[in-house]
Amino acid sequence: MFQGGLLVVISAPSGTGKGTLIKRLQEKNSNIKLSVSATTRKPREGEVEGQSYFFKTPDEFKKMIENDELIEWVEYCDNFYGTPKKYIEETIRQGFDVFLELEVEGAQKIKSKYPDSVLLFILPPSFEELRRRIEGRNTEAPEMILKRMDKARKEVTFINNYDYVIVNDDISKAVDDISSILVAEKLRVKRNNDILKVLGI
Amino acid sequence: MFQGGLLVVISAPSGTGKGTLIKRLQEKNSNIKLSVSATTRKPREGEVEGQSYFFKTPDEFKKMIENDELIEWVEYCDNFYGTPKKYIEETIRQGFDVFLELEVEGAQKIKSKYPDSVLLFILPPSFEELRRRIEGRNTEAPEMILKRMDKARKEVTFINNYDYVIVNDDISKAVDDISSILVAEKLRVKRNNDILKVLGI
Repeated sequence: MFQGGLLVVISAPSGTGKGTLIKRLQEKNSNIKLSVSATTRKPREGEVEGQSYFFKTPDEFKKMIENDELIEWVEYCDNFYGTPKKYIEETIRQGFDVFLELEVEGAQKIKSKYPDSVLLFILPPSFEELRRRIEGRNTEAPEMILKRMDKARKEVTFINNYDYVIVNDDISKAVDDISSILVAEKLRVKRNNDILKVLGI
Repeated sequence: MFQGGLLVVISAPSGTGKGTLIKRLQEKNSNIKLSVSATTRKPREGEVEGQSYFFKTPDEFKKMIENDELIEWVEYCDNFYGTPKKYIEETIRQGFDVFLELEVEGAQKIKSKYPDSVLLFILPPSFEELRRRIEGRNTEAPEMILKRMDKARKEVTFINNYDYVIVNDDISKAVDDISSILVAEKLRVKRNNDILKVLGI
């Protein structure tokens, strides 16, 4: 059977609980590795180089683009974010499932470069609940909350470009849902073209 | 989220353990209903009308074809086998997952009429193991064993028409694999086109 890892892209509006969801998934499934992005954004308090992000100067980031070291990159709120190619391809070859947290544009770039990637979209139980979650953080100014809600509304219109949709209402169920998707995807015939040879058929 | 049932086709060479596998699946998952085929074959000992098959005379079977009551039918070893349409469509609408056990030709007919159906192919751990299982039954004459092995070899060449492949080595794992496929398929974006409306997004 399929022995490699999956390249999984996970997109979610801000406030959907994506961070906690991925943390719980990793606790349950040691085969999941989270890709670390490169960014020119300044580190926030508590963020660790090489774990949260690879923090780069704009010049260093440009050089990574020129050397084709990024499988996708995007400019967002005056900062650059990119996905380093080498780490991902090596980790998949080792059989790990690599998760990328990406915006809707980045997700599409991955799908066109890696058609076998699996695209997940996480939704909040409702938009009202999303607003409550964003407001509940108390870390955002009111105009920022409106901006985030607006962005979320735009993002969900891209849902048809994704393979699976998970509603993060009950987090344990959402974790189980994603675990089932990982199992099922590895059983797809298209990923097991050599199965008859392997079984001596 | 998707509330209907799935139409699942399961094909497997004779001796793959498909019967036990489906029985175990049904014990674990009360949402699975097994479709009952119509056939002109004579009942074997222990087979129950309406549970094993709907046993029909050739004339009755012909009338079902004429009245478009079968979603597919096939002639095999001088007998007719067919899938009654009404039971399946009603049961899916009620939210049950309906499993059809079909030969490779029947599976293709279902996929072309119901593109959203999910096609599973069950493989033995190896062809040597398949021979042992068929021989171990002690119910078949040697020439029948050869015939079944030959048929199995031909059947597996159709595997690329299927969505998923499950190797029935460890039956508990095979049951879990199919359960994961059922969960994952219901999360596919293509089955949840109304999700944004439902969530008030």
